[in-house]
Amino acid sequence: MTLPTDKAAQNLQAVRQKKPLIHNITNYVVMNTTANALLAMGASPVMAHATNEVEEMVSFAGALVLNIGTLSDPWVAAMMAAGQRASELDTPIVLDPVGAGATALRTRTAKEIVKQMDVSVIRGNASEILALRHADSKTRGVDAIHTVDEAVSTATLLAKELGVTLAITGATDLVTDGERVFRIENGHPLMACVTGTGCTATAIVGAFLAVDDDPVHATATALSYFGLAGEIAAERAQAPGSFMVALLDALYTITPETLSARAKITLETG
Amino acid sequence: MTLPTDKAAQNLQAVRQKKPLIHNITNYVVMNTTANALLAMGASPVMAHATNEVEEMVSFAGALVLNIGTLSDPWVAAMMAAGQRASELDTPIVLDPVGAGATALRTRTAKEIVKQMDVSVIRGNASEILALRHADSKTRGVDAIHTVDEAVSTATLLAKELGVTLAITGATDLVTDGERVFRIENGHPLMACVTGTGCTATAIVGAFLAVDDDPVHATATALSYFGLAGEIAAERAQAPGSFMVALLDALYTITPETLSARAKITLETG
Amino acid sequence: MTLPTDKAAQNLQAVRQKKPLIHNITNYVVMNTTANALLAMGASPVMAHATNEVEEMVSFAGALVLNIGTLSDPWVAAMMAAGQRASELDTPIVLDPVGAGATALRTRTAKEIVKQMDVSVIRGNASEILALRHADSKTRGVDAIHTVDEAVSTATLLAKELGVTLAITGATDLVTDGERVFRIENGHPLMACVTGTGCTATAIVGAFLAVDDDPVHATATALSYFGLAGEIAAERAQAPGSFMVALLDALYTITPETLSARAKITLETG
Repeated sequence: MTLPTDKAAQNLQAVRQKKPLIHNITNYVVMNTTANALLAMGASPVMAHATNEVEEMVSFAGALVLNIGTLSDPWVAAMMAAGQRASELDTPIVLDPVGAGATALRTRTAKEIVKQMDVSVIRGNASEILALRHADSKTRGVDAIHTVDEAVSTATLLAKELGVTLAITGATDLVTDGERVFRIENGHPLMACVTGTGCTATAIVGAFLAVDDDPVHATATALSYFGLAGEIAAERAQAPGSFMVALLDALYTITPETLSARAKITLETG
Repeated sequence: MTLPTDKAAQNLQAVRQKKPLIHNITNYVVMNTTANALLAMGASPVMAHATNEVEEMVSFAGALVLNIGTLSDPWVAAMMAAGQRASELDTPIVLDPVGAGATALRTRTAKEIVKQMDVSVIRGNASEILALRHADSKTRGVDAIHTVDEAVSTATLLAKELGVTLAITGATDLVTDGERVFRIENGHPLMACVTGTGCTATAIVGAFLAVDDDPVHATATALSYFGLAGEIAAERAQAPGSFMVALLDALYTITPETLSARAKITLETG
Repeated sequence: MTLPTDKAAQNLQAVRQKKPLIHNITNYVVMNTTANALLAMGASPVMAHATNEVEEMVSFAGALVLNIGTLSDPWVAAMMAAGQRASELDTPIVLDPVGAGATALRTRTAKEIVKQMDVSVIRGNASEILALRHADSKTRGVDAIHTVDEAVSTATLLAKELGVTLAITGATDLVTDGERVFRIENGHPLMACVTGTGCTATAIVGAFLAVDDDPVHATATALSYFGLAGEIAAERAQAPGSFMVALLDALYTITPETLSARAKITLETG
């Protein structure tokens, strides 16, 4: 059996060799950062959101990244069209439900995306992920989760209910498909002081999904790679402006060997 | 009486403690920079512009920032909806009239915003601010202002006419509510070589408005803090790319003590 | 006769003296980078895309930059309105056909722009440029071009057919109006690891078009200036995050004398 850390190295190498096209329909704030992160890691980003071209564009892509920050109705329509085409083509889809739970538009849209297309992975923080529960969910809200054990059991239950792989990111990241649960301990607190690091994590998951058929492995390894980039950036920069620059640099300079040595991925159960 | 420099330190400290949510409806060019500046200083930025969510979003916010760069009709509608809701909630609003006076769309929109909602502060350069005069204003145009004294008397008159606090920024910044006039001498010429520094100043005013009920104090102290960040950045960087990075770093590293010591705020009158 | 390298220096100096306003209707991903690049070089960027202000805005501009990345129908309408007004005013237009050939929307829009307005220069990679051929073109597709000689003859033929100056950028850049052919050898491979360097090149061509009536000279000298900035950035940075920062710095610090000494522009024919 391949160790998760070796799998991380293989996935990074595969992205750099295959340079998969990653189609992003994402928010205005992070478009530049996301494109630069994907380029720095070795993937090929494309941003396209017009309803009259997204189906064509996604047909060339290795993965589709949907991000609902700075949402508006025309973008919802574009996400639906692109996502349904991606589902027909078996192109993996990763959803970032930015702000789900905060406004009705975002909660509704995130739920519709999960319902109307074949989403592989959803990455968000705990409150965004829990906002996607069905009305009759057996899980409880974010305020009812006080321990890591409660988080794990809730995430597992919700992943089964939604039929997707969930990545709940924070100080520690959890990734589960309802059976297996991985815990990722890479990362650095400065990542929370730069806008769009969550969105960038989601895009990097997209790139790994394009080269790894197992969504749980793709997601866990992608998050360890991005977290490690944060750790390396923090060795060089102590404030958010220079940290962001160092983070992009690290995505480019991390070798598969370094990733294999420094990834902190633990299989909890499964 | 609290010195303006001590007030600056208190406001910075309050932003870092309370982490107010700042709702921005702003232009595409500066969204990333603005979000990063607000995060670096310790506030919580959110960008949302859909007419079907802005009223909900602004209800969570400590301040609303309206910026009319890269304007189009759907964004005007969103600004009006968000601003009217903010006015009902007594949530402070700061307006950046980017390009007012340059095109009819921008001049008209900026005037409508001032008319239809309870704007606390308008921050712009002299020509943008003077473009907001009523047809029967007693003030004269930007070409008629040749001395600092003329600028002060015009700004004071216009602040009274519009019923807002005005911040006219340039080599020296003036802030007035029609009674009191503060002059801020912090800043650095390299700030004009980076896009969006004016827009970022406006967003920082928004964050200070969320913790200081006095718009004149909030604005004067916010501008001294941002100007000081420019000064500190210029000690580390001599060209605009590295200057922008150092500017974000400085917003994060400036302590209340440093701000109190280096803020250059003078009460002119009042 | 002025050497192309001296012309490059003159154009850079003229941009810094005249600070031409460059009106950009460009994609979301690169707006911030493009604005910063234009500011760093000494020009005055403005971004405006509303159909109800673009004709007014472009009337103040020294050049109009149209870029079809992240396209949608309202932006197509804005480009048409701005471009037709620019054509009436003899304001030079530069087109960046991002993704032409990839989707029908982009190919069709790029061709319509060339047809409906007086485009001076088109800058893209080989496949984007060749996607603009008429159905009855005597040129062949990008797959049929295997040597530099074939590229030169195709570019020359296509420039004549379209009645524009073409800039085909890559490891070596070719610029031709169908008569003269310039080859530019400046640049660095790291430029391909940062998003929007092609778009930035196009905007810089716009700034040089605002001060140089000869589109071939303006374009060739602009590309050598931008390529040199890449070379100088690579002397200071070896990964894309810090490279991008150093690139913006270099646009600001390169003197006309340095450009004259290090520009690599060769007149192939004409």
